[in-house]
Order: sequence, then C-alpha cells, then structure tokens
Amino acid sequence: MIEIMVDLQGGAKAPLYEKIYGHIRGEIICGRLLPGEKLPSTRLLAGNLAVSRSTVEMAYHQLLAEGYIKAEPCRGFFVCDITELYQLGIETPQRTAGQAAAGGRRGKRAAAAERETAEERKAADVRIDFSPYAIDTGHFPYNIWRKLYRNVLLDDGEELVLSGDGQGDYGLRCAIAVYLHRARGVNCRPEQMVLGAGNEYLELLLAQILGSGKKVLMENPTYLQAYRTFRNAGCEVETVSAGEGGLSEDAVRGKNPDVIYMMPSHQFPMGTVMPFGQRLALLRWASEAEGRFLIEDDHDSEYRYRGKPIPALQGQDSSGKVIYLGTFSKSIAPSLRISYMVLPESLAEVYREKCGFYSTTVPRVQQEVLRAFIEEGHFERHLNRMRGIYRGKHDFLLGELKRYGWVRAVGGAHAGLHVLVTAESARTEAELCRLARERGVQISGLSGYVVEARREPQKKTADRAAYDGARSAEQTPAVLLLGYGKPTEQEIVQGLEILNEIVN
Amino acid sequence: MIEIMVDLQGGAKAPLYEKIYGHIRGEIICGRLLPGEKLPSTRLLAGNLAVSRSTVEMAYHQLLAEGYIKAEPCRGFFVCDITELYQLGIETPQRTAGQAAAGGRRGKRAAAAERETAEERKAADVRIDFSPYAIDTGHFPYNIWRKLYRNVLLDDGEELVLSGDGQGDYGLRCAIAVYLHRARGVNCRPEQMVLGAGNEYLELLLAQILGSGKKVLMENPTYLQAYRTFRNAGCEVETVSAGEGGLSEDAVRGKNPDVIYMMPSHQFPMGTVMPFGQRLALLRWASEAEGRFLIEDDHDSEYRYRGKPIPALQGQDSSGKVIYLGTFSKSIAPSLRISYMVLPESLAEVYREKCGFYSTTVPRVQQEVLRAFIEEGHFERHLNRMRGIYRGKHDFLLGELKRYGWVRAVGGAHAGLHVLVTAESARTEAELCRLARERGVQISGLSGYVVEARREPQKKTADRAAYDGARSAEQTPAVLLLGYGKPTEQEIVQGLEILNEIVN
Repeated sequence: MIEIMVDLQGGAKAPLYEKIYGHIRGEIICGRLLPGEKLPSTRLLAGNLAVSRSTVEMAYHQLLAEGYIKAEPCRGFFVCDITELYQLGIETPQRTAGQAAAGGRRGKRAAAAERETAEERKAADVRIDFSPYAIDTGHFPYNIWRKLYRNVLLDDGEELVLSGDGQGDYGLRCAIAVYLHRARGVNCRPEQMVLGAGNEYLELLLAQILGSGKKVLMENPTYLQAYRTFRNAGCEVETVSAGEGGLSEDAVRGKNPDVIYMMPSHQFPMGTVMPFGQRLALLRWASEAEGRFLIEDDHDSEYRYRGKPIPALQGQDSSGKVIYLGTFSKSIAPSLRISYMVLPESLAEVYREKCGFYSTTVPRVQQEVLRAFIEEGHFERHLNRMRGIYRGKHDFLLGELKRYGWVRAVGGAHAGLHVLVTAESARTEAELCRLARERGVQISGLSGYVVEARREPQKKTADRAAYDGARSAEQTPAVLLLGYGKPTEQEIVQGLEILNEIVN
Repeated sequence: MIEIMVDLQGGAKAPLYEKIYGHIRGEIICGRLLPGEKLPSTRLLAGNLAVSRSTVEMAYHQLLAEGYIKAEPCRGFFVCDITELYQLGIETPQRTAGQAAAGGRRGKRAAAAERETAEERKAADVRIDFSPYAIDTGHFPYNIWRKLYRNVLLDDGEELVLSGDGQGDYGLRCAIAVYLHRARGVNCRPEQMVLGAGNEYLELLLAQILGSGKKVLMENPTYLQAYRTFRNAGCEVETVSAGEGGLSEDAVRGKNPDVIYMMPSHQFPMGTVMPFGQRLALLRWASEAEGRFLIEDDHDSEYRYRGKPIPALQGQDSSGKVIYLGTFSKSIAPSLRISYMVLPESLAEVYREKCGFYSTTVPRVQQEVLRAFIEEGHFERHLNRMRGIYRGKHDFLLGELKRYGWVRAVGGAHAGLHVLVTAESARTEAELCRLARERGVQISGLSGYVVEARREPQKKTADRAAYDGARSAEQTPAVLLLGYGKPTEQEIVQGLEILNEIVN
C-alpha cells in the first residue's frame, strides 16, 4: 500500500481535511498516485497524520464525491482513472486556488467553485468592515452567555429535548412582550406573538397568513432581503421612492396595495423617521378596508442617540392593522437567529388555523437562554452599554468625516448603525466601492439597496434619479453607506484615509 | 396604597408571575380590589414577595393586556372598572382552570382561551404517550451535550456571534455528508446541502426553488405537515392512495405531477418500503423531462431492526433528480431544530440564485455542538444505543400485542418508531382514540393522517375505503398508530390494558 505524507503545518490556513484532500488530489492529478492503487484506510492514515479519523473521512468523502477515488465494499478506497473524468467533460472543481490545474474542458461546476474561492479570498482580506449590518462583536457578554447556557443545560428534564410551543415558549413571549411594552410602546398579549429563526422566515409565514397574491408596497431603496422574500413567497411587490415623501398617503392610494412594508422609526437604508401625521394617515388608510395591513419592521430601533425614542407605530394602532416585526440580530447577535412578530388578534387566529401545525424554528435551549438574559436584566444592561459604545463610534465617525472636503453631506445620523455619506468624486459609486474593497475596506453604495438595480438596469437609473431629487440631474454623486457597528476607532481612521486616497 | 399578599408556595404548579396575576385578577373580580385603587409599584411588590421585578412586571403586563388594570404615566398602576369590560362584551380569557368565573357575555377570545386551557389540561393528563412522533427522552446524552456546549462556548471569538454561511457551516455540512454517505449511501458534495430549522422550513424553500404553481404528488395517508406546507407555499398537491401500489408508475403517469414527495425507505404512516423496481421506474420517469423531481423524505431511516438497511434512493440517482430531506429530530431530539436537504447540482445553483440571500435559520452554537457530536463519534454511538433501546421496546410491544384477541393485524413493524394495529371492536377508530385519551392514553387513528379527512369529509371515506382495499367493504376496522418511542415497558403494558378495556 502507498504511504501518504501530508504537510499539515505549512501552507495556507485551511481546515485539515481540506489539506489532506488537496494533497491526495494533487498526487492523483500529477500522476504520482496511479489508477487502481489502494489508499490507506481512514484509521491508518488518521494514525499516521495524528488527526481524527473523521478528518480523514471527510477528505476521502470529498475525493469520492468528485470522482478521484472509489470505495469498494469490504476492500477499501482505490484511485480512479481520472482520464475518464476528462473524457466525459465533467472535470472536477478547483477548490484550492494555486493548486496544479489539470487540463480538459471546464465544466459549469468548476467555474462556480472558482467563483466561490475568489469570494472567499476576498472576504478573508477585508480588514475594515463598514457594512451597515455588521455589529460590534468585541463587547458581546460572553461570560454571562456561558453562565446562562450552563444553568439552562443543568436541567436534564425532557423539556429541553422536546420542541415545545410552535409560537415559541410562552414565558419567553411574555418576557419579550414586557420589554416591547416598556421600550417601544407595543401593546400585545403573548398569544399574538410568534417567534421565528430570522425575519425572512417570519415574512414567509406572513405571506401565508395574509393569503396568496397580495400586493405589498415598500419604499425604495429598502432592505432587499424583505423585498426578495415577499417576491419569493409569491407576493406582488411594488415600490415608491423613499426620496420624496416616501409612503405618503397619495402615493399609497395611487398604488392601492393590500399591505405596506415600512420602517417608520428608522427607514433602512435612508435612516429617516416617518412623521407623526404620515403614520396616522397610513393607519387611517389601513382601517378603511378589511385585508389592509401595515408591516412595521422595527429592526434597529434600540439605537437612537439623540432626542426622545420614537415609539412604535403598533402602539398607536387601535384597529388591529399593524403587524410588528422585531429581531435580536442587532441588539444581541445575528447568530442567535431569533426574531419575533406581533400579529393583530384577527391574524393571530389565522396563524393558528393555517400555520399552527408548524413546529417552532427556534431551538428550546436558545429560547431558555434568551429568556433568562431578558428576565435577569442582562438584556437591558447590554443594550445600554452597546448604546453607549455605538454612540461613541457614531460621534467619532461624524467628527472624522468633518476632516474631508469631499464629504458633501452626511445623512441618517443619530440612530441605527450606519450613516449615508454623499461623496464628491470623479469616480462613480461602484468604482469607489470596488477600489475600497481592493484595499481591504468593505463599503457599499446606496445603489446596492435600490430594488430594480438587479433586475432592470434601465429602471434603476430612473428610480435613482427620482431619489436624488433636487440634486444635479447631470451628475449623480456617490452615496456611501458607512456602518460603524463593527470597526474600532482606529479602523475608522484608517478606513477613511484609504477612502480619501480613492476619492481624490 | 393596598397591600397584596400572594401565596407563592401553595396551589398548583405554575410560574410565579401567573400566580401573582391570578391572585390580583381574582381580587379584582370578586371585588376586594376596587376600581381606581392604586397597585403597589413593581419594585415594591417584588420586594414584598421576594421575587424578581420582572416577574411582577409580567404579571402586571398580563393584567394590563387583559384590561384589569391600567397604567398612568408617572403615577403607576390602577384597578380598572371591569363592569365596563363586561358591558363591551370583551370578557377576559380564563387562563387558569378552576378560577372564579366572572359573569357576562363570552367573547371569541374568551372561548379561544378556554379551548387552550382545555387542551393544556388534556396534555397535562396524558400519562402514556403512544404518539408516533414522540421519542425516548430518558436516554438523551445530557452529559455529553453539556460538555460539548461548554467547549463550544469557551470560544469567545466573533465566529459564534455572526450568523455564518446561509447554507449552514461548511464543516457541519461535511460531517453530515460523510455520515449520509456511510449510513445511507447518499452521494453529495457539501455545496449541495442546505441546513434549516426543521423540514417544513426546507419545504418552504423547496417550493421557492422549484418555482411557483408546481404540482406535487404524494401518497395518502401521509405526513400531513408536508402536505399542508406545500399547500401553504402555493403548490398544487394531489394524492394517490398508499394502499394499492401507491406511487406506481401508472398512478404517477396518470396524475402527471412535476414533483413527487415520497418516503421510499419507510412510508409514514404505513411503514411500507418501496420496492426496488418501483424506485427505478420513478427515477426513469423523473429523468424523462426537465423540471421533474423526486423529494425523498428519509425521516426515520436510522431505525430499522431487521434485515439489511435500505439505502436511500438518492444514491441510485444518476441524473440529478432526487432531492434528499433528512432531520435530527428523531435521531437526536426535536428541540434541536436541525434538518438538511441535499439538492441536485442544478437545483443547488437555483438555490444560490433565488435563496442565497437568506441567512441560515440554525444558530451557530447549535451547529458547532452538532458538528462536534457527529465528528467525535457521539452521534453514531447514540444512534446505536437508541436503536437497541427502540428495538427492545418494539419487540416488547409486539410480544404484548399477541396477548390480545382484538388485535387482528400488526403492520409497519421492524422499522421506525410506531406500528399500525388493526383492532376488532364495535367502536369506531375515533371513539377508541377519544376514550383512550380520556383515560390518559395518547393514541391516534390512521384516519388522522388521511389528507382529505379535514377538508372534504365525503372524499375521506372514498380514500379510506380505497386504502382498506381487500378488507370488508361494509365494516372498516379501526387502525391505531402505536408509537413506542416514548413509553417505557411498564407504560406499554398499562396502556394496552386500558386499550383492552376500551376495545371490548
């Protein structure tokens, strides 16, 4: 039997199994391992390389799946004749960049895999992340979290093994309802609340509750995820420009939707707050006909750094027309995968009828940990702390931006986790983002959040022009989203310096 | 200010906040607390009762939501005039059975709440659970699970805070792919796998990937959850009787669906295995036209107690037509909320295009714990152990069933977690189930898994008659599903004794 020596220490940073896979694959491609040769057993190779057996198994499995080796029952693993693979035109994907490339035609899979690798490489190189979705991970209360998990897991009753209530555990829904009432002015019974693994899942449920073929209206630019989710769920989705009046009563009556998706307390990505009169007008519009509803996505309302907090629209709703959506992705961590929606009583009944059979999508342990986190006061302490940290970064970023002449305007300040920077530059928005990314700075342009941008390029320009409104029609300035959730002060300084070099 | 004394030790087992809520509510209803009276502050009452402030807040919130008390800004909480509530006809829900009932007309909410309470009471009284979905919770490896959580949580890098790959972590997908290859003969690259919080969520994704308006064919009776999910997602769903040939080539060609949902290794609830020839015929059918796919739900194939394991259909698929669905709900625990699907390469590309923007629905910590559980060999050890335990219960149940003359036939044995018992009785299936439940034995009848049963009662009889096939047409015998996952041997003996008394 052949012996296989893999250098597991040197080379690029990659999982062990990938190194083993890559090594053997290379040996087969370059002909050092010949068709029909028997590979060592996973147990033997694992022993030789001092890795776990499952690591070797994963490597072998990858080789199996790609046709480099074959398994013969009770005999073991054997090298395949890969010339056959090439003749069939199903050449293997190139998982690791820089590995000796084999000849032959390139299949679709290979191209896709190369794209993935390129993207991975890109992601690995990001040193300064201004993404508006990124949060500060350095101040996560790991110790408290660990302690709560330990306490919850001490309970070895069957409670933690069964999936529990489909809407989420009653106690956790109570705790969230109390928090929402106090912090956001939301009025609800726990019976109206449904927990789910992320906003998109809840939006998929909503589409089912509202019934098929509904027309959803939203502002543009917007959370593209919500737009795409409602489209995927079979809704007709229309948009109005967020720039000029946005979801004004006239615009809404003109479009005549069934449902409006809105972010009244902090529109994403524009950062605007919907005026009180407009809120009342939309509540009135909704109450005029059965089947009309307002979806209030209150995604990052925890973070407001100046003025009074803006209470949720839901609290002003007296006719059961507001569906309230919230998440712990920004207030605790995206990895938690816990969002919630508060349904009007009428829709809560429809939910139980149409969707009551769904098991919850949130694991029981997570629910228990979150409940303790809220009930023991950690959540509000954490929020207060993060509010201070984000306010500090926000103020620091605004101060730094003053130093650059190309910053023509800063929008969406004093709330959330990003600002909009209008940049005066000979380069286009897309160019600036690309060049920044090449220098390790992750940044996005406002066009990236415009709905039609991806589907109908010509319409994009129209919408974008509409948004730009009063600005010069001949030259659209670049508008960059600078998220300050993730970067440190030092990274903000470095990032802006790099941007400065690119802009000029 | 009034003083409130709540007996938190005595009475029924209930959360503290519910006791406080119930006490104050009772005092208001019976008139010991009068309209306009001020309640103690949450801080004060929490101190007096030696409970946390959030407990009192939850109680107050519940009272607020139900209209027993009102909050006045900066002043505190006051008792409402509840006679008003009754005059408006929005009487309050009766959360706790046996509490003093108030007069007045009954609103819809109250009725719903009473239904809930009745169901809760029923659930609490179930002493012996023969549900086919229930698993053995007594042998869950709590200690290992705790240890893995502890190890995973020791890592306080940002990895655990970010939501990670939308398809699920690559490493976990590798581990599952290796397991599926070895245990089920499934061939896949991790790139083809998508993890999700439960089968229904993955089915909602599938409906999007396959495109709108697709016709899905499934056997009847079936997993009603899958039927309802595809319906909710906008698919047209048709059924063929599982009784006579089931998804035979003729039946399929007659119905001309786009997609077939099937459980070839162990049909639920019938417990049948699809013959090899029929599998090949369906694979051939699928390969004849673009857009045709087979969804293989391999839900409980881990448990087979006799004969060789039946490899998955996916492993026989050479033309990329099988979508493989699996879950850890039965092999580990339902509360885990981790399922997976393996897409053919062509659909994996559609997934990335249409659904690639969705964040994963599985929390990162759970993913890491599961990965360690599989990679360190605990999963297979646990499976082996549970297989032995379930086999033991299975054999014991079969042995016990021989003691009763009314057991005419036992079907679906030697695999999964339930058997079908045809019972000779003057009572109908529904009667038997109801009477058993009244005696604390949770049991279900085959009719409960018949699709049309809920929507079109006349069609139900037709379908059921078709299924009964060769049996006497004038008298349909009761077919009971006896799940042996949960009950102990002693409970099986007791449960059958109770059944025996009911049947005769």
